Amino acid sequence: MKRFLDLADFPREEVKDMLSLAARLQRHPQPSALAGKVLGLLFLNPSLRTLASFQSAMMRLGGTTVVITPGQGTWQLETRPGAVMNEAAAEHVREAVPVLASYCDAIGIRMFAEGRDLQHDLAETGFKMMADLCDKPLVNMESAANHPCQALADWRTMDDLHVPERGKFVLSWVNHPRALPLAVPAATVHMAAMRGMEVVVARPEGYALPEPIMEKARQAAQRCGGSVRETSDRAEALKGAHVLYAKEWGSAQHYGDSETEARLRKPLGDWCVDESWFTNADPHCHFMHCLPARRNVAVADAVLDGPRSVVIREAFNRMVVQMAVLYRLLRG
Amino acid sequence: MKRFLDLADFPREEVKDMLSLAARLQRHPQPSALAGKVLGLLFLNPSLRTLASFQSAMMRLGGTTVVITPGQGTWQLETRPGAVMNEAAAEHVREAVPVLASYCDAIGIRMFAEGRDLQHDLAETGFKMMADLCDKPLVNMESAANHPCQALADWRTMDDLHVPERGKFVLSWVNHPRALPLAVPAATVHMAAMRGMEVVVARPEGYALPEPIMEKARQAAQRCGGSVRETSDRAEALKGAHVLYAKEWGSAQHYGDSETEARLRKPLGDWCVDESWFTNADPHCHFMHCLPARRNVAVADAVLDGPRSVVIREAFNRMVVQMAVLYRLLRG
Amino acid sequence: MKRFLDLADFPREEVKDMLSLAARLQRHPQPSALAGKVLGLLFLNPSLRTLASFQSAMMRLGGTTVVITPGQGTWQLETRPGAVMNEAAAEHVREAVPVLASYCDAIGIRMFAEGRDLQHDLAETGFKMMADLCDKPLVNMESAANHPCQALADWRTMDDLHVPERGKFVLSWVNHPRALPLAVPAATVHMAAMRGMEVVVARPEGYALPEPIMEKARQAAQRCGGSVRETSDRAEALKGAHVLYAKEWGSAQHYGDSETEARLRKPLGDWCVDESWFTNADPHCHFMHCLPARRNVAVADAVLDGPRSVVIREAFNRMVVQMAVLYRLLRG
Repeated sequence: MKRFLDLADFPREEVKDMLSLAARLQRHPQPSALAGKVLGLLFLNPSLRTLASFQSAMMRLGGTTVVITPGQGTWQLETRPGAVMNEAAAEHVREAVPVLASYCDAIGIRMFAEGRDLQHDLAETGFKMMADLCDKPLVNMESAANHPCQALADWRTMDDLHVPERGKFVLSWVNHPRALPLAVPAATVHMAAMRGMEVVVARPEGYALPEPIMEKARQAAQRCGGSVRETSDRAEALKGAHVLYAKEWGSAQHYGDSETEARLRKPLGDWCVDESWFTNADPHCHFMHCLPARRNVAVADAVLDGPRSVVIREAFNRMVVQMAVLYRLLRG
Repeated sequence: MKRFLDLADFPREEVKDMLSLAARLQRHPQPSALAGKVLGLLFLNPSLRTLASFQSAMMRLGGTTVVITPGQGTWQLETRPGAVMNEAAAEHVREAVPVLASYCDAIGIRMFAEGRDLQHDLAETGFKMMADLCDKPLVNMESAANHPCQALADWRTMDDLHVPERGKFVLSWVNHPRALPLAVPAATVHMAAMRGMEVVVARPEGYALPEPIMEKARQAAQRCGGSVRETSDRAEALKGAHVLYAKEWGSAQHYGDSETEARLRKPLGDWCVDESWFTNADPHCHFMHCLPARRNVAVADAVLDGPRSVVIREAFNRMVVQMAVLYRLLRG
Repeated sequence: MKRFLDLADFPREEVKDMLSLAARLQRHPQPSALAGKVLGLLFLNPSLRTLASFQSAMMRLGGTTVVITPGQGTWQLETRPGAVMNEAAAEHVREAVPVLASYCDAIGIRMFAEGRDLQHDLAETGFKMMADLCDKPLVNMESAANHPCQALADWRTMDDLHVPERGKFVLSWVNHPRALPLAVPAATVHMAAMRGMEVVVARPEGYALPEPIMEKARQAAQRCGGSVRETSDRAEALKGAHVLYAKEWGSAQHYGDSETEARLRKPLGDWCVDESWFTNADPHCHFMHCLPARRNVAVADAVLDGPRSVVIREAFNRMVVQMAVLYRLLRG
């Protein structure tokens, strides 16, 4: 394995094989498996889980990490091709990425959506440019429209909890003070479809996921025996749900237009998960969220702190599955 | 040992035993004692010694560290219970702490006083909430009203220098451009009392340490054979002193009222330690300070750079004693 | 070797010996050579290559690093001797440096020119003060007027590329939005002279390198068989050049006067390297730059991305030569 950029790049059996490797590495630690290996982590956007889980995953396999955070002790980086660099950014990623890669055995890159042009972001234009600059094993630590490490961790979390592979998985839009990127909803809906689940996207009018995201998920569902649909009828969506996966994202209709988007979002304050959402769900329905979560905006304290919430387990599984990813990238 | 939060949690003999372990680890390094262990360090406030000494202590025992600094590459963290999170903070410590703990074998947390409500800060309301969120071995890297690692390092420093256990220890208030927290004075006065010393707190009118801090120190003195008193007569306090420990702190009388506090502090420019302070002290009287120190505001260059100053040794001892703390937490 | 502060501190044979050691360490990795050793890195200025290459160099030899970046999670540091510290800086380097050194087996310090007083900066007043505070092996990670690690990496890069030791080396001024320090041009012109090359400094009127920098390079040339001259006739300078080394620096004539300097620089937009610069150069002329580089201000995309450019190799060689430096400092 040379790159871990998108769960869709792997057949279902290979994903399950990575999950098995993760389980083995957790049960039987290999504290020297990656001894002498250096992982470079380039964060163009903030992080807590991704930073800490990649560092700890690497260290638990005996490797080490170098972290570069532009603007935080490191030069601000330019990403625009052809830029005349007479502003704040001192260095271009065209140098920064190959230089960091040259010091390391593998690198991870986090680069969120620009949030201006939907097609540009859905096409992963920015991340693909970065990936093209890197000749070492590469991990996507969240790009404009993907977050494969989160998806893999969530898959494992559902396996841990014995959520049926054919179970009902509801990805629900929830509120947030700002329009957030499509990376996690895109990765999540695809992952659940690839796991073979009955996937329902519940979202208010105006928050439909872009067609390419839905189509990719539908294709995965078709290959893997699941299904994917969307609705604005939250109550109907949640009926019998085994999982409620809450996520914030911006309206694709008003992409890059934060004022109009904010007006659309304003009356949607009831899209904050509370216990009433689970009335007709499966009694054991789990609450999932990739974190960070805006308490009492996206989800009520009572749910996040209650027995349905498995968010800490999801976060922990980031470390566990990333050990498998790093093992595959660096040991094969 | 599961937690290192307050020197007062341990009998005097156990503190001395930790100091013996620190000495042994310094004389006979154990570079693999904590191999494979990961220490997470969460800094809600700035640090130099604490960051560098915990990292080096862990590395010198063969372990590794993960550092999380909210707002510096990591999301800003919310700490208020029940907050409706529609402002800058993207994540609550209720998630951040258990997530970080899940990746690590032990964690350290630094969380200064809020400086608004004295009772809230003296009660360690903030740090206790953090501690309750952590199911792994935990170190207090400075809380609202405590700094046990500094206290332990200072105890060792006095042992190194053969300062008599029954010697005279003067904690003196010194000036500073801002009102600083009570953590170090509280920990210091208690530590010196617990060491069995004759403790005198010298401070101008208005800067008396809050009664719960004094009372805790007096109780330690009673158990350990020392004494604790306070005075605004600096010259009298310093007579025969073996140690002058200088520290800045804000007036408890005007806690949270920075303007009134600043007016009270303004005429106190002579509370800046210079050689004249030592006129009637023991000839070998040492100058101690936990650092960082405001040169020529809290202490004159001549003292800090002079032969009385043992501040670098105190800072070095942070690493040495923390090796013992980490060893106890992670190996028992 | 106790310190690596200036290539001029070493005889030519010792520099070549370090380059041989670097080559050996690259061909025959010694992943445990510095096991148990801790390197402290103090960055008073931003960094990407220096941070990542020192960390990876240390890790590839089995050691570990502690990074301190004032103002980024760490207190802001005061550097002025005798300062009355009642402003933003909470700690003085007079404490910070010995404290960090006490935790580590060696330290590196990066401290750029202040840019106010040319004589002060050329005399390395700031860095020398820092060095005097450190009793451990010390590396200059770029000071006001030197960058020996970059110089050593560039020497190795030319060896890698079989650039003749008597070849023609052109250091050319290039444009930049701001006046930059003299560290890299000073180190570069000296290094090329010490390598024995025919060194020509090409720069517009007003950008002559200060006489002490030129004189030091001329002395190295005299000892090592090379030559050093300067000119404002860029075309003449580049005739037959084996290497074009581009670098931005501020006018020494208007040192510390950013407005006048900016007016002088404004009409110099054609000092941006493009392919036309190489018309009469040696056909295999290499383009070198220490990075970060302002694309399309200092150098055109076509050159930086083209076959002449060896900038990534130079950056990679930072890690390789620093392994040798750290090995010498910590193992002898």
